[in-house]
Amino acid sequence: MQAVRLGKKLATFDEHWSPRIVSQFNGHDVMVVKARGEFVWHAHPDTDDFFLVLKGRLTIQLRDGQVDLGPGDLYVVPKGVEHRPVADEEVHLLLIEPKGTPNTGDQATAAKKTAI
Amino acid sequence: MQAVRLGKKLATFDEHWSPRIVSQFNGHDVMVVKARGEFVWHAHPDTDDFFLVLKGRLTIQLRDGQVDLGPGDLYVVPKGVEHRPVADEEVHLLLIEPKGTPNTGDQATAAKKTAI
Repeated sequence: MQAVRLGKKLATFDEHWSPRIVSQFNGHDVMVVKARGEFVWHAHPDTDDFFLVLKGRLTIQLRDGQVDLGPGDLYVVPKGVEHRPVADEEVHLLLIEPKGTPNTGDQATAAKKTAI
Repeated sequence: MQAVRLGKKLATFDEHWSPRIVSQFNGHDVMVVKARGEFVWHAHPDTDDFFLVLKGRLTIQLRDGQVDLGPGDLYVVPKGVEHRPVADEEVHLLLIEPKGTPNTGDQATAAKKTAI
């Protein structure tokens, strides 16, 4: 029975593109991540991909356009849709994905997700 | 392909305890809600209950304690656990629940959830 203070969780690490699990919800991992630069193009064949910007700005590039997000903006990339997150400056995000989802869409290249 | 700007969504209504659906994620409704005062004691037998405070403060009372949340704090009430949200002043929340989940735990008393 403990509140999850996202700002405090984010203050515990500096790595980019390395999600930390902060809670669980209906079989999903609730994660925070810091990101900067260009991630890889990828898709998740079996799950939607939830992004909420907590701090900074994020562009989610799609094959036919892009979505620009600031603090308090969210976007759900539909299942199977190719996308690439890009941040010119460091951005802090809340992510939600089914447990075990590889962040690159591929277990071989995925970051290990650690609970904090 | 459109960002969901939570602040703009929240600016479109004033009612309390009346969630608005702003997105969909893996069979769940992503909602914003404004709340003030005491909600009813309830539980959701089939789903965890996700709360993220966007603005203001929320207390989630549990039968054996309580969780106090401010902006950027989240808490997931486990499936089946009785709880009562309480806010002395208006609070703005992001909620995530499976589509069709009654906000009171009971369809007979639940608020209608409208998409905006």
